[in-house]
Amino acid sequence: MRKGLLTGLFAAVLMTGTGHAADKDPNEASIEYRQAVLTVTYANFVPLAAMAKDRIDFDAEAVELRANRVRMMSTMIEEAFRRDTRGSGYETRALEPIWENYEDFTEKARNLTRAAAALGASASEGEDAFKKAFARTGGACKGCHDEYRSD
Amino acid sequence: MRKGLLTGLFAAVLMTGTGHAADKDPNEASIEYRQAVLTVTYANFVPLAAMAKDRIDFDAEAVELRANRVRMMSTMIEEAFRRDTRGSGYETRALEPIWENYEDFTEKARNLTRAAAALGASASEGEDAFKKAFARTGGACKGCHDEYRSD
Repeated sequence: MRKGLLTGLFAAVLMTGTGHAADKDPNEASIEYRQAVLTVTYANFVPLAAMAKDRIDFDAEAVELRANRVRMMSTMIEEAFRRDTRGSGYETRALEPIWENYEDFTEKARNLTRAAAALGASASEGEDAFKKAFARTGGACKGCHDEYRSD
Repeated sequence: MRKGLLTGLFAAVLMTGTGHAADKDPNEASIEYRQAVLTVTYANFVPLAAMAKDRIDFDAEAVELRANRVRMMSTMIEEAFRRDTRGSGYETRALEPIWENYEDFTEKARNLTRAAAALGASASEGEDAFKKAFARTGGACKGCHDEYRSD
């Protein structure tokens, strides 16, 4: 839906950049962005995992906050990986099939968006609903990592 | 408002972590998180700057999308910097006054949240309103960087 918009903006701007980014190799800038997106996603997933594993108490407000962040971050994945960095020489965990099967990759990102939205909605339904929704969210992460991220 | 919640979660979980994070020094994990938050913020700010400088066409939909992301990311700054990493040995651009004046630092983060919200709202008011709101948002970034980030 926003693909045209984002492609245009990214092609025109982000990968050229301003300020510090102007001096940066476009592959490096793109890799930094996508890694940052996933670092923020992961950091907000961790407290959810801790609740799901009973390492900390269930907290509906925290579930809503964290799940909403995971959902929002997941909507950045498509643009963050749009630049094909194969052969750029940077060592990353992103696997080449991302750009061979880009539609499938982005569909998996949308799976995460949907799962995280359901996870946020589960907060008001109590701990059991949260745990089920959390398992589906973790499955959405894994579904992508299995194919598209190296161990 | 959410401070108690986030402090508790972060103290208990994020800085201990699960998976990869479990093997990570808590200072390093915290620094990675805050740098990722600001990398994502910056990447979404860049297209806004390009529009404000007439390097690309004004696009109300893009302004809303990017400004909303900047606003949302800005709400993570407080927790991302909560861990005092002074003396940790990691070289970062974060300056010590952050933790000497933490209340002022977090107030400056809230200034960015407010400015980015106004920036998003400006999208429907046209290009002049956007440019004024953009200048205030850039000012909110600079207001914090001047004191709390090294060049």
